Amino acid sequence: MLEELKQKVYEANMELPAHGLVTYTWGNVSGIDRKTNLFVIKPSGVPYEDLKPSDMVVMNLNGEKVEGDFNPSSDTPTHLELYKQFCEIGGIVHTHSPWATSWAQASRAIPCYGTTHADYFYGEIPCARSLTTAEIEGEYEKNTGLAIIEAFKEKNPIYVPGVLCANHGPFAWGTDAAQAVHNAVVLEEVAKMAYRAEHLQSTLKAAPQHLQDKHFFRKHGENAYYGQV
Amino acid sequence: MLEELKQKVYEANMELPAHGLVTYTWGNVSGIDRKTNLFVIKPSGVPYEDLKPSDMVVMNLNGEKVEGDFNPSSDTPTHLELYKQFCEIGGIVHTHSPWATSWAQASRAIPCYGTTHADYFYGEIPCARSLTTAEIEGEYEKNTGLAIIEAFKEKNPIYVPGVLCANHGPFAWGTDAAQAVHNAVVLEEVAKMAYRAEHLQSTLKAAPQHLQDKHFFRKHGENAYYGQV
Amino acid sequence: MLEELKQKVYEANMELPAHGLVTYTWGNVSGIDRKTNLFVIKPSGVPYEDLKPSDMVVMNLNGEKVEGDFNPSSDTPTHLELYKQFCEIGGIVHTHSPWATSWAQASRAIPCYGTTHADYFYGEIPCARSLTTAEIEGEYEKNTGLAIIEAFKEKNPIYVPGVLCANHGPFAWGTDAAQAVHNAVVLEEVAKMAYRAEHLQSTLKAAPQHLQDKHFFRKHGENAYYGQV
Amino acid sequence: MLEELKQKVYEANMELPAHGLVTYTWGNVSGIDRKTNLFVIKPSGVPYEDLKPSDMVVMNLNGEKVEGDFNPSSDTPTHLELYKQFCEIGGIVHTHSPWATSWAQASRAIPCYGTTHADYFYGEIPCARSLTTAEIEGEYEKNTGLAIIEAFKEKNPIYVPGVLCANHGPFAWGTDAAQAVHNAVVLEEVAKMAYRAEHLQSTLKAAPQHLQDKHFFRKHGENAYYGQV
Repeated sequence: MLEELKQKVYEANMELPAHGLVTYTWGNVSGIDRKTNLFVIKPSGVPYEDLKPSDMVVMNLNGEKVEGDFNPSSDTPTHLELYKQFCEIGGIVHTHSPWATSWAQASRAIPCYGTTHADYFYGEIPCARSLTTAEIEGEYEKNTGLAIIEAFKEKNPIYVPGVLCANHGPFAWGTDAAQAVHNAVVLEEVAKMAYRAEHLQSTLKAAPQHLQDKHFFRKHGENAYYGQV
Repeated sequence: MLEELKQKVYEANMELPAHGLVTYTWGNVSGIDRKTNLFVIKPSGVPYEDLKPSDMVVMNLNGEKVEGDFNPSSDTPTHLELYKQFCEIGGIVHTHSPWATSWAQASRAIPCYGTTHADYFYGEIPCARSLTTAEIEGEYEKNTGLAIIEAFKEKNPIYVPGVLCANHGPFAWGTDAAQAVHNAVVLEEVAKMAYRAEHLQSTLKAAPQHLQDKHFFRKHGENAYYGQV
Repeated sequence: MLEELKQKVYEANMELPAHGLVTYTWGNVSGIDRKTNLFVIKPSGVPYEDLKPSDMVVMNLNGEKVEGDFNPSSDTPTHLELYKQFCEIGGIVHTHSPWATSWAQASRAIPCYGTTHADYFYGEIPCARSLTTAEIEGEYEKNTGLAIIEAFKEKNPIYVPGVLCANHGPFAWGTDAAQAVHNAVVLEEVAKMAYRAEHLQSTLKAAPQHLQDKHFFRKHGENAYYGQV
Repeated sequence: MLEELKQKVYEANMELPAHGLVTYTWGNVSGIDRKTNLFVIKPSGVPYEDLKPSDMVVMNLNGEKVEGDFNPSSDTPTHLELYKQFCEIGGIVHTHSPWATSWAQASRAIPCYGTTHADYFYGEIPCARSLTTAEIEGEYEKNTGLAIIEAFKEKNPIYVPGVLCANHGPFAWGTDAAQAVHNAVVLEEVAKMAYRAEHLQSTLKAAPQHLQDKHFFRKHGENAYYGQV
């Protein structure tokens, strides 16, 4: 079932090592079919070089495995919460990509310091709070999703397609699995340049709001004129 | 038309991913034919792996498309202003290369800290000012070009073949598209080493003027003796 | 003798340049056969590109060469001490991988700043003390092993499968040679992200203990549920 | 003439891009035949991908070209001074490798922070002083060599096979061209790790002298026991 989606989610997973976002098995991509409300996700702990489209695991939004020989990624409950809450998104990716993870470990949101950031993320990329002891000892991966959702109470997940989880690492998303990975690559690049910009100018402020508006809406929404739209 | 120039501009564009200067489609190269005052530029938002010489877009200096199936790069009006003002240049490149962009995000010019810089750029690489809200909401890409020109009021663009745009990223240029890309590669390398040199010596000053003169004019002008000249 | 182990140790050695952990010959991997108490180790100073499985040197726990055409790695006495003391380990690796070595040169333990670290190392990665002049002038490589053992007086080497040696570089280990290399790759990645996290937040504290517990025991011990266990 | 030496110098030059030490043509390697006192050096400004063994230029110690279709590297007078003064060396390399050049731009010697450094360089890697205006305007490249020699008044160039030139970049040398490049690779790696170690420990001191002695003489001199000696 969902063979086409499995193929796409497989390909999106394989983009992670190709872009240098993962070491060993530290990452996972999923994609959802909104008609059936089933999502397809990477199996847990399987090396990328061994991965096949047919290894992808099919889950429903109750967290039950519908098809697949393997256990799904241990982060599956996080993906599930995000799919339930962020209705417009079609794909999710989690990595421990080194620059984004460094910001997460510092428990810091990434300010928007320039147009590279503003082209994809509208405003800062937030850092979801640390979980409480009870949240960690309870349904940890589900609670990770709920903490992300909490960080987006005042934010539009389509305008800010990614987040850092404190002491952990980034999640990114998009309209499908491929776009989620694209945003994860951008997040890593933006995290790197923000780090360096701060170290060149210790009192650095976010880029002017008008510049942020200009770049984001040059590429998104009905007045976009970037690309072949 | 201009098939030879299209081929050269195509090849110069393909040098960007080869040198690690671009992520996805974040860059564009153009080249001008000064006899006809037509310039050739990369189409907007087309992935490098799909790019063909025949995809290049031909523009005139009024900003009108003369030939091409695609929209030109959204940065075309910036290129156009630079071609009009800097008569000696034949090629322009824009990237979001990470080290140069970090300096741009910090709104800092790159001081000349050594001979690598002085071999190609005479004096600091300036940072063009942030645009005003009116400039951003108006003809943004054109105004980006005008801000660059403003930063070169007292500078020779042949002696300083590149610039940073505050909160944005670098532009570089040269006698043709290939040399523009060459200068963009150097700019990235110089930006990296200047960052690190400052972090090794917090009170770092620019290299002595005589050393800067020596290296720049060893390679440029009528007394050059570097290479097979 | 031990042809299968030689093959595995050879392959583990070849993973070092593949993962960017070594420059030239700066690294060595060994693996032990606990039935015979013989261990197999890389020869000293042989380039990786020339290495063959049959070049591996077989040693006993008295430090005597049992088989092999070459001298064993000069770090052999360090491996030997660790095998004698840490009975549960089956493989050891030493590198001068740049990020871990930078921490070692700074004589600093690596705090656990996030889940990437906690997934593999329970608590900080210690830094073994500098050796005394007498220890250096005496049996230096053996004393390096003893200083590591001293640093683990209160630690479980299975829970913390790696160490830094002050002014020198990292050692890592695991149940076999392949897992030792896996842990060395993780150590390098963790060292990189910890450096950057500290430079993003100068007052950074270790990750909450409950998060460290959660992640480590999600992957290790009887309640592990990561992967296909 | 000297075809074998040309081949070796050619191969050593090609190691520079292979090890990531050069961008474009920013580097050159030479090797000397001490019987004839002729040395072979890379031509100036020729791209590495076009280089052939027969392009190498043969020079004598008076600075006269003895054979070759091209101009020799513009740094030839620096090589020449070093060959005249440092009688034991057989090969020299100059690069603008980014980490070493960053230290040079900061006009700082690299302290010996660990065993990687001590395995190859005995004590700090010095930084030769800036040249005076007269020295720059006069025989600049020759004076660069003399400033290096001045920095080695109290040092043994065999024990410290490399140097930084203030505001410029590194030179390294060895018994032949291949070993010179080997030392340049080590210098770059050491420069990187020293930078990072300082940023992990702001009051960092050099490694203990006994450790430096141990590691250097473990690999060099009559009591060496590293490798297959």
